[in-house]
Amino acid sequence: MRATVIYGAGDVRVTDVPDPKLVEPTDALVRVTHSCICGSDLWPYKSMPRVEEGQRIGHEFLGVVEEVGAEVRGVRPGDLVVAPFVFSDNTCEFCREGLHTSCVNGGFYGTDGVDGGQGEAVRVPQADGTLVPLPPTGDEELLASLLTLSDVFPTGHHAAVTAGVGPRTTVTVIGDGAVGLCAVLAARRLGAERIVLMGRHPARTDLGVEFGATDVVAERGAEGAARVRELTGRGTHAVLECVGTEEALATGLRVARPGGRVSRVGVPQYEQGSVGPAMFRRNVTLTGGIAPARAYIEELLPDVVEGRVRPGRVFDRTIGLDDVPGGYRAMADREALKVLVKP
Amino acid sequence: MRATVIYGAGDVRVTDVPDPKLVEPTDALVRVTHSCICGSDLWPYKSMPRVEEGQRIGHEFLGVVEEVGAEVRGVRPGDLVVAPFVFSDNTCEFCREGLHTSCVNGGFYGTDGVDGGQGEAVRVPQADGTLVPLPPTGDEELLASLLTLSDVFPTGHHAAVTAGVGPRTTVTVIGDGAVGLCAVLAARRLGAERIVLMGRHPARTDLGVEFGATDVVAERGAEGAARVRELTGRGTHAVLECVGTEEALATGLRVARPGGRVSRVGVPQYEQGSVGPAMFRRNVTLTGGIAPARAYIEELLPDVVEGRVRPGRVFDRTIGLDDVPGGYRAMADREALKVLVKP
Repeated sequence: MRATVIYGAGDVRVTDVPDPKLVEPTDALVRVTHSCICGSDLWPYKSMPRVEEGQRIGHEFLGVVEEVGAEVRGVRPGDLVVAPFVFSDNTCEFCREGLHTSCVNGGFYGTDGVDGGQGEAVRVPQADGTLVPLPPTGDEELLASLLTLSDVFPTGHHAAVTAGVGPRTTVTVIGDGAVGLCAVLAARRLGAERIVLMGRHPARTDLGVEFGATDVVAERGAEGAARVRELTGRGTHAVLECVGTEEALATGLRVARPGGRVSRVGVPQYEQGSVGPAMFRRNVTLTGGIAPARAYIEELLPDVVEGRVRPGRVFDRTIGLDDVPGGYRAMADREALKVLVKP
Repeated sequence: MRATVIYGAGDVRVTDVPDPKLVEPTDALVRVTHSCICGSDLWPYKSMPRVEEGQRIGHEFLGVVEEVGAEVRGVRPGDLVVAPFVFSDNTCEFCREGLHTSCVNGGFYGTDGVDGGQGEAVRVPQADGTLVPLPPTGDEELLASLLTLSDVFPTGHHAAVTAGVGPRTTVTVIGDGAVGLCAVLAARRLGAERIVLMGRHPARTDLGVEFGATDVVAERGAEGAARVRELTGRGTHAVLECVGTEEALATGLRVARPGGRVSRVGVPQYEQGSVGPAMFRRNVTLTGGIAPARAYIEELLPDVVEGRVRPGRVFDRTIGLDDVPGGYRAMADREALKVLVKP
């Protein structure tokens, strides 16, 4: 089959790879109908050291089950399913706590012999724990929103949940990428009435306003933080940090109200952060982490299916599998917000 | 009157200072009967740059009200009272949320014309919001425990509360100083059954075991973290970081179970901490901060008065006011765990 392989910074190729086959009785084969490129795929695209043997990439997909292992009970061939971006057994002590990203039998697509999501098909380990059946549909707008359940929408939701967002919470969202916009949507869905979106790309922040942002702050760093404080008085209860840079973390810690919570869901591109006395004196909490998307899909699904939220609007470009390298370029150059791939 | 003044590292003196007088109608004058030296006083004692005009020091005290301003209603002359280590109005938006350390009318002893606690008397601003009346007693053992309500016991409690300690929580406490031992006591009081105390001073860890620690780990750093994981499998749900060094924070982040919470209550002696991808991947939360002692006193008081907890056992030396410089030396040299001062 054809699948996406990365060989180093700037070098993404769509090549022939072995067809996936069932290996474990708990596996399922999924024919991918919709996949996409993640902001986190851009980090290796920007900085991965060159490798001889490329690495499979992509971790967001939905598709149709083709074949299941002998022990799989929850999905069957022909089912439309979405795959959260980490596979998990949904039964271990961490899964039972809703922390599927720490599943003792879980893992990541594109590593250890598991296919990446940007390809024609994927062998999904722990299929019963991982795959969530969806109502059959041919509605491409709905399918785009369903695809966001694999990562970007639950990731925004995870930021909002771990930051304690609710009806009486004021919120700052840092970053107008797809995760930031989904975090706005998630915060609004959880009842937040005041949502300040920090971003400086008008086309993106405009969508953020449609998703529920009440204020947009284009300034960054200390200046941006000052502007948020000016707007909100003492900062906001919740800060959803959806970028992953040290500067974004520092901004988040600055705009949190005393006693507030900064939740980060962008993969940290730093080892050290400014968590010193200023944060301590104000009792600001740093929370979040890699989102256990699997834990949230059932909760978010009805609102997506019934059209109360339309997270699929973050996709502003659709391409075929062979155009994936161009999709990476477009996202890296900020010509596209988020690229949907139809293999 | 006589009071303690610090002039720089290693230079603490007890000198004559002006007698305190009521300034605001919300003030009270408190004759200090019991004060003490805090682990956080040792940071300036170790590193404060030399100053010409010394600075008053000390922030933990209990005593008898001598005089109150015209607007004070909650305490009257003759009352035995304990003062939390930050004064606060107990009515502002932060106080109502239990975050008295961010009170908009609050502040610290020893600065801005407010007396320090290591002296004969203190003018207490925001007396109604700050001072908590105590049942009269002459029992010195009980008075020592009541004194801990000003800081060290609520600080340990704050660590436990913000880390979410409860009956099903496993806990690591980092640090066998007075705060660490009080954190053990607080965690046990909140129902934790497994409490690993990281400390290497047997006299202190022995008291920690009496307070409720089930395991003691003497190793530090990576070795200590490995030992805690060995004992607990995957680390503990809650980590109470009661030291304040970057190493202690790093250890805390290592011994937290995925999804766990590290709460720090020792004043950070660092600007940058290791909050990078390893913490993110495991969804570990960093919380805590300066403890709003005032928020907890009513809750903790009955257990202290009725002897169910005896946090005053952290005091292993009692001195007079003139001996305060020697008290600092003894604590800095780890000859004393915590020094009680009777002016």
